[in-house]
Amino acid sequence: MLKFYYAPKSCALASHIALEEAGAKYETVRLNLAANQQREAAYTAINPKGRVPSLETERGVLTETPAILAFIAQSHPAARLAPFDDPFTFAEVQAFNAYLCATLHVAHAHKYRGYRWADEESSFADMRRAAPRAVGACFELIESMMFKGPWVMGEAYTICDPYLFTVAGWLEEDGVDPKSVPRIIDHRKRMAERPAVRRALAAEAG
Amino acid sequence: MLKFYYAPKSCALASHIALEEAGAKYETVRLNLAANQQREAAYTAINPKGRVPSLETERGVLTETPAILAFIAQSHPAARLAPFDDPFTFAEVQAFNAYLCATLHVAHAHKYRGYRWADEESSFADMRRAAPRAVGACFELIESMMFKGPWVMGEAYTICDPYLFTVAGWLEEDGVDPKSVPRIIDHRKRMAERPAVRRALAAEAG
Repeated sequence: MLKFYYAPKSCALASHIALEEAGAKYETVRLNLAANQQREAAYTAINPKGRVPSLETERGVLTETPAILAFIAQSHPAARLAPFDDPFTFAEVQAFNAYLCATLHVAHAHKYRGYRWADEESSFADMRRAAPRAVGACFELIESMMFKGPWVMGEAYTICDPYLFTVAGWLEEDGVDPKSVPRIIDHRKRMAERPAVRRALAAEAG
Repeated sequence: MLKFYYAPKSCALASHIALEEAGAKYETVRLNLAANQQREAAYTAINPKGRVPSLETERGVLTETPAILAFIAQSHPAARLAPFDDPFTFAEVQAFNAYLCATLHVAHAHKYRGYRWADEESSFADMRRAAPRAVGACFELIESMMFKGPWVMGEAYTICDPYLFTVAGWLEEDGVDPKSVPRIIDHRKRMAERPAVRRALAAEAG
């Protein structure tokens, strides 16, 4: 039995959806980031980074969204969520997810967590002002160059799709104009209709 | 034939070493980041992100270090650089590389490229001052919690090793005390003795 640690409205939603798409057997543990539960000893004993998501397996704890997504896909092959038998196409999936993890999510984090990389209030305010530009540039690159359609990788639904859906949920809050990224908004709408997505969202809201 | 685009002293070194470890057939194209060659049209036609590394294959261009590393490993199975047949261990490899890509490298980038996330000179100066603390915290977590030894994942040499070696090359420049991370420094020394590492470094220096 897998145990999935998440927080609502965080990037953990991507893995939560993937667990549902895969038909995985798992239980959930919800953390309250506003109360800093992710930094309490009970959780850092599980994930020393003090971040979500974490996926506890019978062999140990996995962290980092791109790693967890690929693990869910590879350990539930019947769901066909990633092309493990094709190194090039699998690498394209991985490159997309690495971009969301290391560039888009990082740009988004500057709106709220500037203290990770600076010390002055004036710098945090500057980062908040710059976030729409930094996050917007990521979404524009995805819209124009990376998204194949109808799913991220083309005809095949993959672990890229719940991850894009998750970060696209932050778009308005980050000050990005939805009209500037119509293909991503269309994808977001179609994702929201999938039963697995509805189940994950309902669990996180409940 | 693969074509590998890199810049000296960048994170591309990790993939360069992996290509050598794999015995891959490839040619190299060197970019001068100081001259902003990565933003010229000739290169953004290959990689619209304007970053290094890129790996041009007969089926298209791959980007993002964790994706390129896994691709090199999967397409050169005889070199046994990643445990693709074991979803859990492969996910551990991926989680380590995602941490270097999305947390450690990002912390390092704030020393030089604060303009990605802010607009004011005062913020850039603040980020430069905070970099030793931010980067140091990453190395300390790796030293104390993530590095298994003698290689990153334990007895097996994997694609995590050239990536750690690459970012550990920035340690002194980032203001991190080498004495605070003795296991990482020992790893760096042993890596530097590997023939594949020597060949990649010689090619980048030549």
